[in-house]
Amino acid sequence: MSKASSRDRLEQALARIADPNGEGSRACLNVYSDAARAAADAADARAKTGGALGLLDGAIVTVKDLFDLKGEVTRAGSRVLADEGKVAAADAPVVQRLRAAGAVIVAKTNMTEFAFSGVGANPHFGTPRNPLNRACIPGGSTSGGAVAVGDGMCDIAIGSDTGGSTRIPAALCGIVGWKPSKQRVPTDGAFPLSYTLDSIGPMARSVQDCADADAVMAGDGPRPIEPVPLAGLRLGIPQGFPLDNLDDKVAVWSVHAMQRIEKAGAKLADETITLFDDMMAVNAKGGFSPAEAYSIHRERLKARGDDIDPNVRFRIERGAGMSASDYIEMSQARARLVRAMDQRLADLDVLVLPTTAITAPTIDEVADRETFGRKNMLLLRNPAMVNFFDLCAISLPIPESGPLPLGLMLVARNGQDARLFQIAAAVEKLLAR
Amino acid sequence: MSKASSRDRLEQALARIADPNGEGSRACLNVYSDAARAAADAADARAKTGGALGLLDGAIVTVKDLFDLKGEVTRAGSRVLADEGKVAAADAPVVQRLRAAGAVIVAKTNMTEFAFSGVGANPHFGTPRNPLNRACIPGGSTSGGAVAVGDGMCDIAIGSDTGGSTRIPAALCGIVGWKPSKQRVPTDGAFPLSYTLDSIGPMARSVQDCADADAVMAGDGPRPIEPVPLAGLRLGIPQGFPLDNLDDKVAVWSVHAMQRIEKAGAKLADETITLFDDMMAVNAKGGFSPAEAYSIHRERLKARGDDIDPNVRFRIERGAGMSASDYIEMSQARARLVRAMDQRLADLDVLVLPTTAITAPTIDEVADRETFGRKNMLLLRNPAMVNFFDLCAISLPIPESGPLPLGLMLVARNGQDARLFQIAAAVEKLLAR
Repeated sequence: MSKASSRDRLEQALARIADPNGEGSRACLNVYSDAARAAADAADARAKTGGALGLLDGAIVTVKDLFDLKGEVTRAGSRVLADEGKVAAADAPVVQRLRAAGAVIVAKTNMTEFAFSGVGANPHFGTPRNPLNRACIPGGSTSGGAVAVGDGMCDIAIGSDTGGSTRIPAALCGIVGWKPSKQRVPTDGAFPLSYTLDSIGPMARSVQDCADADAVMAGDGPRPIEPVPLAGLRLGIPQGFPLDNLDDKVAVWSVHAMQRIEKAGAKLADETITLFDDMMAVNAKGGFSPAEAYSIHRERLKARGDDIDPNVRFRIERGAGMSASDYIEMSQARARLVRAMDQRLADLDVLVLPTTAITAPTIDEVADRETFGRKNMLLLRNPAMVNFFDLCAISLPIPESGPLPLGLMLVARNGQDARLFQIAAAVEKLLAR
Repeated sequence: MSKASSRDRLEQALARIADPNGEGSRACLNVYSDAARAAADAADARAKTGGALGLLDGAIVTVKDLFDLKGEVTRAGSRVLADEGKVAAADAPVVQRLRAAGAVIVAKTNMTEFAFSGVGANPHFGTPRNPLNRACIPGGSTSGGAVAVGDGMCDIAIGSDTGGSTRIPAALCGIVGWKPSKQRVPTDGAFPLSYTLDSIGPMARSVQDCADADAVMAGDGPRPIEPVPLAGLRLGIPQGFPLDNLDDKVAVWSVHAMQRIEKAGAKLADETITLFDDMMAVNAKGGFSPAEAYSIHRERLKARGDDIDPNVRFRIERGAGMSASDYIEMSQARARLVRAMDQRLADLDVLVLPTTAITAPTIDEVADRETFGRKNMLLLRNPAMVNFFDLCAISLPIPESGPLPLGLMLVARNGQDARLFQIAAAVEKLLAR
């Protein structure tokens, strides 16, 4: 973050949000100008006396539309939830922690309805356009958050990640996106998509900013990130589906980035991971998100199905036909695979792979339902594997890949969050040269 | 436990098991005479040099037929599983811990098929008869274990408890039965009934023996039980369903026991717990055990349904019709109720109630299917509440209630296991006077 005062940075952020030629109206659904100004001034006053509240004192932060803010309706990007009008009785625990650490919460950001897709389109509140190419989608589901970071409307955007919803928009918008080990950050007060897979994570312009926000949300103490030496690290390149159907640009630049990491002294090796086949067999039953989303929304679908984004409704309704026994069997099978993957990765520091198989499609392209489905799958495919296997991961931009840079994903075992941040800081530094 | 040598006690146990007029053949399905003699001799040798392996050195222990013992087929009281012939690759973790603490494992004990009912009848291997009245059922599902303790075939019987399967047979056979906070004892290597509700616990003739076995299985250190003063303890008597339809004898003697506890200085108060109504509403969807058991056994039911105890088959098949969304909703609702009950019990030391609503029915009575269903429900009703709310509990005999004594159940919040053992030791001492 810059060294300008919090109030100065806030005013810049508010100006970007208010810019009639910008994406503010589509990225930020609620803007808290007055409360944010008061919070920024208080942070600046503390800065003068050296009494910072916490790691994020004065940081300009947005939160995804699915987090409870006391006294407001939690919409999760949905007109139907907006109409239901259920007012949150308290801030979500992560929001409480952010505020207690001094964060200046400036806005609630747009998202895919119910967080159910990786494209980031929203027919109700408008699709925020990609900061790097306004013709393109921002990626989702935390679409507004990534656009807000990319366009300077905030320092840090808090999102959720069920199958890539922080990492996909981060990759497409050229920023850093983090998905922690699920259990570290409380999901209470975050409107759920999948109880099994939901995680809460930040997006920002640097690994350090993500690490600070993650530490606050997890209730950890300060965590200064010291980049580790890349020399001697053991990186695995997972073979098979993560490398299938890559856009040429993705293939070229992710290989190039990996070569740079290797030249820096890390040991890269191709890794055949047969557990991927087991994952696909388990998900062939229908997966967790449709079944769990259907349990959450079934009455809503009956009453107001036509008012839900058809691309989202279609995905939720796929969960309608699953039996309890299939779901239980799927849960047990996943639990076994999670344990097996933890063992499989024991001799590696991280996996490294392209975050998304494709570059950002245009907004026009995904208006076609079939294209939407295909592109959505290619966006979600690599990130979603991380949630299935209960791992942690980060998407880093590859700056030299051009004006619409790609994301490189580093993946580590559950619980290795601190170590992953250190490795990511080293890779970030290398790729920025 | 007596101070005789382990080998002497083992020989007495083996004699009881072998007694042609006793219940050995119905209570103990496999007997490990040679291995047990070697283990007992080793324990006695250690005792001479003061080098005990652990808390259970030389204790004579049986394990329920659902625990994996390396090289054997885990039958869970089922002819079908016996025929499938799947050999366990390793001892279950709890069995490993028992052996490492010096336990002498003498036999594998009979049980309700798949552990699915509280009566303790088994049509395949014979119903072990109640040590206190041979005309009566032993209670289940850990039927053989309770009979083995009651008849002196072992010091400690290890069972599982999904809705009362250690506490019900303990109550009906006049011994102590323990159900820990679920997460304390690993369920791996125990053939599952319900992933959500299964716990592993011991039965024995004293609270101390149960505490020792529990400490070993949980991987805790030694836990000498010091009875706490009863004066000033806050005991709640849960009103509503736990006191409905009690046999006269149960009503009279449980009130009498509570009065003795009150006279010893404890504060007893009637507690209205509206969460019981919420539990019933959640279970109205069908409950966890049928759905989870159906997911485990559905192929088996198709292939060999006629070879499964009809009273068990009927209960499993009730899980066939549940949808994934109902199951997910039920799981979420239970999680909320578990948290609410934990708060509800914050100001109480324990709940106190009759373990079972009825005295042991006769074996003849429950041959009638309708009577079986009704009695089974009355046996399970009070104990099962503990598993639903994720609590810990113990059933203590009320010795003065006569030759077929009743069980008094003490229930505490999740994680209060050590405290519950101390309170139970005090109540045990009081009731023995």
